[in-house]
Amino acid sequence: MGNISSPSLFIDLYELTMMQSYFFNNKNDIAVFDFFIRDREGTPRRFYVFAGLEFLIEFIENLKFSEEDIKYISELGLFKDEFLDYLRNFKFEGDIFSVEEGRIVFPGEPLVEVVAPLPQAQIIETALINLLQFPILSATKFARCFLVSRGKLLVDFGARRAHSLWSAEVAARCAYITGFHGTSLLSAGKKYGIPVYGTMAHSYIMIYEDEKQAFEDFAKLYNGTVLLVDTYDVEKGVKNAVEVIQKLKDYRIKIRGIRIDSGDLIENSKKARRILDEAGLQDVFIFLSGGINEYKIKEILEAFPDLAGFGVGTEATVSSDLPYLDCAYKLVEYSGIPRMKLSEGKKTFPGRKNVKRLYKAGKMVCDVIIPFSNPEDMPDESELDSDFDSYEILLKKVVDHGQVVERVEDKRKYILYCRDRFMRDFEMLPEYLKKLGPPEEGEKYPVLFGKEFSAILHSTERKIQEKI
Amino acid sequence: MGNISSPSLFIDLYELTMMQSYFFNNKNDIAVFDFFIRDREGTPRRFYVFAGLEFLIEFIENLKFSEEDIKYISELGLFKDEFLDYLRNFKFEGDIFSVEEGRIVFPGEPLVEVVAPLPQAQIIETALINLLQFPILSATKFARCFLVSRGKLLVDFGARRAHSLWSAEVAARCAYITGFHGTSLLSAGKKYGIPVYGTMAHSYIMIYEDEKQAFEDFAKLYNGTVLLVDTYDVEKGVKNAVEVIQKLKDYRIKIRGIRIDSGDLIENSKKARRILDEAGLQDVFIFLSGGINEYKIKEILEAFPDLAGFGVGTEATVSSDLPYLDCAYKLVEYSGIPRMKLSEGKKTFPGRKNVKRLYKAGKMVCDVIIPFSNPEDMPDESELDSDFDSYEILLKKVVDHGQVVERVEDKRKYILYCRDRFMRDFEMLPEYLKKLGPPEEGEKYPVLFGKEFSAILHSTERKIQEKI
Repeated sequence: MGNISSPSLFIDLYELTMMQSYFFNNKNDIAVFDFFIRDREGTPRRFYVFAGLEFLIEFIENLKFSEEDIKYISELGLFKDEFLDYLRNFKFEGDIFSVEEGRIVFPGEPLVEVVAPLPQAQIIETALINLLQFPILSATKFARCFLVSRGKLLVDFGARRAHSLWSAEVAARCAYITGFHGTSLLSAGKKYGIPVYGTMAHSYIMIYEDEKQAFEDFAKLYNGTVLLVDTYDVEKGVKNAVEVIQKLKDYRIKIRGIRIDSGDLIENSKKARRILDEAGLQDVFIFLSGGINEYKIKEILEAFPDLAGFGVGTEATVSSDLPYLDCAYKLVEYSGIPRMKLSEGKKTFPGRKNVKRLYKAGKMVCDVIIPFSNPEDMPDESELDSDFDSYEILLKKVVDHGQVVERVEDKRKYILYCRDRFMRDFEMLPEYLKKLGPPEEGEKYPVLFGKEFSAILHSTERKIQEKI
Repeated sequence: MGNISSPSLFIDLYELTMMQSYFFNNKNDIAVFDFFIRDREGTPRRFYVFAGLEFLIEFIENLKFSEEDIKYISELGLFKDEFLDYLRNFKFEGDIFSVEEGRIVFPGEPLVEVVAPLPQAQIIETALINLLQFPILSATKFARCFLVSRGKLLVDFGARRAHSLWSAEVAARCAYITGFHGTSLLSAGKKYGIPVYGTMAHSYIMIYEDEKQAFEDFAKLYNGTVLLVDTYDVEKGVKNAVEVIQKLKDYRIKIRGIRIDSGDLIENSKKARRILDEAGLQDVFIFLSGGINEYKIKEILEAFPDLAGFGVGTEATVSSDLPYLDCAYKLVEYSGIPRMKLSEGKKTFPGRKNVKRLYKAGKMVCDVIIPFSNPEDMPDESELDSDFDSYEILLKKVVDHGQVVERVEDKRKYILYCRDRFMRDFEMLPEYLKKLGPPEEGEKYPVLFGKEFSAILHSTERKIQEKI
């Protein structure tokens, strides 16, 4: 349920037909593929958060074809025995360079670079994109909620409408990396050590003939709980909550807050706050859920900041305003020669490369795409809007000849590392990127080309233009 | 990779805290919960396709808590030993009624009804919604592509940007159920027996110094293949393809078609068709991919119908214009008494129920919500726009006291059954529902209330209004 039985067959057929052609036509030299996000005008994102590397590495380490897989492939009638034998012994033996999980990244720059014999680099395409795309999409969306949350409590409530059980766990993980306090999902809590939160559902209230009795029974079992007040009518619900809170005080049972999940959340919060305050319950907080996203968090906190926090569900879990990333995994070098695609609107950047990030006074200035072999490469000075006082190279080797450089032994520790990695980058994010809308004129984070990289780009394009 | 290790813990914390409260407060009577899609004005869907039941049943059958699960739950510090013992022996023993997979359904009607002791019905909420939501979302989206496809070849290309490996497999399955011819994804092909399709990627062309050599090597290995012509320049790519096609004729190697994946697909198709025709290659077809969705299929076929088909990827896989369903699983009866939620914009319909579908001359007329106990219930005649010549009851028992009524033994046969089920419903879909936009005034499929059901609804609402 929710699991796939042949992950190694997470391959689009064309990967395999190309692979066989490479096999029989001796195209086995080293290929370099880049994974990157395409830069699309108008996309409502000013930055992205990289995530998913843990899943990619797990996939690479376990990539082998079982006899059952081979049998299926053979039955397709397209593949020769010699090639099937080759698949039987298939192992990924290449290198992978990657940005760290939790880091803030930008379109147009390589986030993962795979350097491997061509068939090996090709066959992982579909799984690589799949295993990175959703985590990045998700981490980015939750980071945007964090961005506007003013330090309020943020809890992931999205499990039920994620596109799979796994996506729900991943969303909880990404939410926690990007500053959320916890999740409602127990399986994610168990696997990643994420704190779990929860109150009660409307069904709980509906079971009882009397809302007050429902509140009371629940609070007696869970001292310090939060009551859901909008099952029938918010105003009456809050008044019922007040009665129960006051009654239970005598029993030393505390109710810390109320939750509202429907209607006009701002108006309902104001109404509830007034009723609570009039009853002298200034310390009972209001927690909101229901259709929450980063735009709503911003709007609600501007109108009514006196809230404890938000349960953020579906809208973030599916990244509803951007339900997929325009990302790609493209060949950039083969047999030592830079390669480039010129398709309309889908050009790629040739050659092995890395990303250099420049800082000034603790803030990001720009990223520079440089050739892998030349960390000293710099953009033309005319392109630099500002000077810088330090820099850093973003992609590091994570798989070396098929061996994982640093295996994630403890998922619970690793997620804390990623969360810290995000927080450090978030501190360094310039103010003009801390807005929700798509970047306006002059507000796009500069991803520049080093001079040497630029020269490679132009000479590659020229050579292809001459050839075709 | 892509799998979750504790599916039984796919629970939001509040399900478990409520469950413990039910346990200690003796709320163990039979509860009825309905799963349904909410009716939201302006949603760009005129019908939905039900899917995902297979996954739900698999989940229910395997639902038990391991000692490791219990240990984690215990460490949360919220649960008492007596309740943990109860969880150790937990088993789902209720009944489940459901619409069949592949059927066309509408908002506001129950699609699945769970009848079980309250704690059992409550604990499956999060997983049930998750395992049904994405399959319905996905099947509905692919059905819309099928709707406008004029019988052209439709292939699911979406694996790489699905929100998980599993969602990709499910999308392939849903695409096949709703009329697609196949998928590019091998793991889905293997599991469900779906035909697999594929051509070549841009990287394949880029490996070669010469596009023509790339085409030639590929075609020699795969007689009857399709060539990707837009790596550098569509016009030159098609001309190169023509040269190779003519050369290989002498070797009795046939190239069946070309694929275009970028730029203005209509203009590029016209250009390619002209070049092919001028070379006397009228029988070489054009296949399109890249950003395809139902709106584009419609637009492209209106402008240029002479196409073989479409690879439909990301846009359908994530259901980009509607990335989640507003669906819910709500208590409708407890201990024999109908229950109802009155939250603003989120009212529910009380009581055990079923759906009766009326037909006239082989077309759907309307659906009627009826009490479970009274299949004879009918709406007031004033509400019926048309008479009818036959009817059918949609929800059938699929789990009986925790036992699956008809287990899916052969996934490959079952998917063909679901596909046929879809095709039969599709035949009966009235013309006004076969449009892409949201239903306009008077174009909404009628989901009516039976008279007896209506009476239950009103009396329940009245009783609650009096109580609160």
